[in-house]
Amino acid sequence: MDYTFSEFSERVSKDSGIVRLMQDLDVGLSPGSKTFFLGGGNPAIIDEVLDAISEANHDLLDSPEEYARAFGIYDHPAGNVAFREVLADYFSRKFTALIRKENILITNGSQSSFFLLFHLFAGKFQNGIKQVLFPILPEYIGYHDLGLFPDMFTAMEGKVRPLQKHRFVYEIDKEKLMAMLQDHHHEIGLLALSRPSNPTSRVLEKKILDEISTVTKKYSIPVLIDNAYGYPFPGVIFTEGEYEWHENFILSFSLSKLGLPGLRTGIVVAEETVIERLSQMQGIFSLSPGGIGPALVKKIFEANKMDDLCLSHVLPYYREKSKIAQNVIDDLLAKTRYFLHESQGAFFLWLWLPDLKISAEELYKKCAAEGVIIVPGHYFAPKRTWPHLEQCIRISLARPDKELVVGLSLLCKIILENI
Amino acid sequence: MDYTFSEFSERVSKDSGIVRLMQDLDVGLSPGSKTFFLGGGNPAIIDEVLDAISEANHDLLDSPEEYARAFGIYDHPAGNVAFREVLADYFSRKFTALIRKENILITNGSQSSFFLLFHLFAGKFQNGIKQVLFPILPEYIGYHDLGLFPDMFTAMEGKVRPLQKHRFVYEIDKEKLMAMLQDHHHEIGLLALSRPSNPTSRVLEKKILDEISTVTKKYSIPVLIDNAYGYPFPGVIFTEGEYEWHENFILSFSLSKLGLPGLRTGIVVAEETVIERLSQMQGIFSLSPGGIGPALVKKIFEANKMDDLCLSHVLPYYREKSKIAQNVIDDLLAKTRYFLHESQGAFFLWLWLPDLKISAEELYKKCAAEGVIIVPGHYFAPKRTWPHLEQCIRISLARPDKELVVGLSLLCKIILENI
Repeated sequence: MDYTFSEFSERVSKDSGIVRLMQDLDVGLSPGSKTFFLGGGNPAIIDEVLDAISEANHDLLDSPEEYARAFGIYDHPAGNVAFREVLADYFSRKFTALIRKENILITNGSQSSFFLLFHLFAGKFQNGIKQVLFPILPEYIGYHDLGLFPDMFTAMEGKVRPLQKHRFVYEIDKEKLMAMLQDHHHEIGLLALSRPSNPTSRVLEKKILDEISTVTKKYSIPVLIDNAYGYPFPGVIFTEGEYEWHENFILSFSLSKLGLPGLRTGIVVAEETVIERLSQMQGIFSLSPGGIGPALVKKIFEANKMDDLCLSHVLPYYREKSKIAQNVIDDLLAKTRYFLHESQGAFFLWLWLPDLKISAEELYKKCAAEGVIIVPGHYFAPKRTWPHLEQCIRISLARPDKELVVGLSLLCKIILENI
Repeated sequence: MDYTFSEFSERVSKDSGIVRLMQDLDVGLSPGSKTFFLGGGNPAIIDEVLDAISEANHDLLDSPEEYARAFGIYDHPAGNVAFREVLADYFSRKFTALIRKENILITNGSQSSFFLLFHLFAGKFQNGIKQVLFPILPEYIGYHDLGLFPDMFTAMEGKVRPLQKHRFVYEIDKEKLMAMLQDHHHEIGLLALSRPSNPTSRVLEKKILDEISTVTKKYSIPVLIDNAYGYPFPGVIFTEGEYEWHENFILSFSLSKLGLPGLRTGIVVAEETVIERLSQMQGIFSLSPGGIGPALVKKIFEANKMDDLCLSHVLPYYREKSKIAQNVIDDLLAKTRYFLHESQGAFFLWLWLPDLKISAEELYKKCAAEGVIIVPGHYFAPKRTWPHLEQCIRISLARPDKELVVGLSLLCKIILENI
């Protein structure tokens, strides 16, 4: 049939970074694939995590009543009540704060959490339009198409701070942020940032988060901290993970990066009024979130195994990968001008190539032609207005050593041919 | 904090039928609850279904590679490829049509399917606004808030056709539908109907569906047939289930009403171009759908067990419930003027009380005060413009016999006090 499609569908069907990434991921990770997959953020399969979840699954099968509850009854629109109670206890200890089940929402993965949050705090309001502000670009590829209304996002470029040779970090431009809030606070509904940053791995310091809370609270603007890779689980942070939960902070967590993306379980922690609104929206959009992830992972928390899984298995795995990958790049690109973002956590290296003669998009295509999948930098911003990002790429570290090293070697060869 | 919330959140936070229903459901079905739950559409727990899924779960645990794939890797944004292949084969046989995996999308439950479809075919378009048309009210409570844009829905009242004493059916007003399409086809993006109807149980005849296809195809308007309770699974149809898949039909299916709502697995069958668009949207909104439901239920299809589960266990269970409930009502309301919609399928009875002295909403409250949960009729329309619905209630049949009979007796007592 010759249908016409909505404005939203037309907009995203042309060029969505996250759609391309998820399609590349499915092809790259399918059995028999010959690609070197340094693209999307699929976690590694870590045996100890899989053992823990299958043990929980055996347990669940051994309790017919519990099994029937998990499979046979819709959870509350805010998510399984018993799981939220266990999480409330866990988060209260981690953030030294009183966190109750009424502060917790379970979702079908953190992408779904962001969708709910962005449409609660941005889009059409009674007095006009509000936007989500990303205070430090580059920022997560999956945020930028996640608005049904056009122009839901605005952003500030990160400031490049050079470190020792071949290394740098991005910093928040605090003065610009304060000026922005002062001039535009009526148009900003939410600040959002990932910690560690996806793609750069930047772990914003506790002190900086405290400052952000202070300036945003003044204007009653909430701040989303996306901990998909961070504190307290999966805990892939090479610096300091802990920070304080301020009343205008909204915390997002995910089970995916532990190695369990098939469960599609996300968690939001926020003030009760926010959770209530999100719960209504989730009831409307999907009745209730999935019940299997909560039923299984609750057992891992109850057995007090979560922190050990993260600290003894997940964190060391990715720290080692980061070292291996940095060694390959430092070795093969030694004679060129290149800068890696200091590796502070997550599963990624962020590589800046100021002398690249082609765009990152063209580099992506040349790499793909040789079976190496990366993600070009321009996708990590809501608009294509920062030329710097055309010189950057994100490299995922989750694949086995051999695939990682061979893929990186091929990548470096292609880079050297285009510099 | 003193936040302001988006227009959408403000709109739905006031009075959403589906939010109230899901909250009632969680309270009503929690362990130790003393209510008689004739409200939301939670399916019964049917032992044979639970046995089949736990057998599949044991199988999955016995195949470590398959287990790791299901839990540890994101599925394609359109859903697990192997599951879609199995479904393509199954649906091709059921609809005597060539249905390929490219015609199939997996979602996080059919509520999520509707959200995607409504925002693909309605809302803002390049040339203005389009609406979803419900051609036969009353219609599913969960549709009516499911639009981020205001006024996304329009509807036509069903025509009451009296049957034998105390029974009636709703019919589509075909002439009005044709006139509506002729005058407003530019403003209508999608027709949507549930079959069996939730709430009335009406199973629109194959011939009527053929006619609907003919008139809508003329204007390139797609038609969503929501088979949550219907053909081919869970197959809770007391009349004829089979019908033809026309090229402008979009079919929605769910695993929930089999007795597996915790899995949150929905399925959409449509033309390839439609599935491609939906897949992009799903990638953006949730990366990919859950992987556990597909991994488990695939095994039930592969073992050719689905049809037998439906025909030998699910269908007889609800047919029996419907008879029991009709007997109680016919018995206790015998001396009043009341009309039940002919019971053609699904888990509901729809009761019309023309002499009710209070509104259905007030009846709901009086019942709730005595521990009986029902759903008042006015929620089954996008706007409160049809007074007839204030005289109607939906009664769910899924609970055990004793709870059903005692709940119905209490309900009839309260009705008699208010007539």
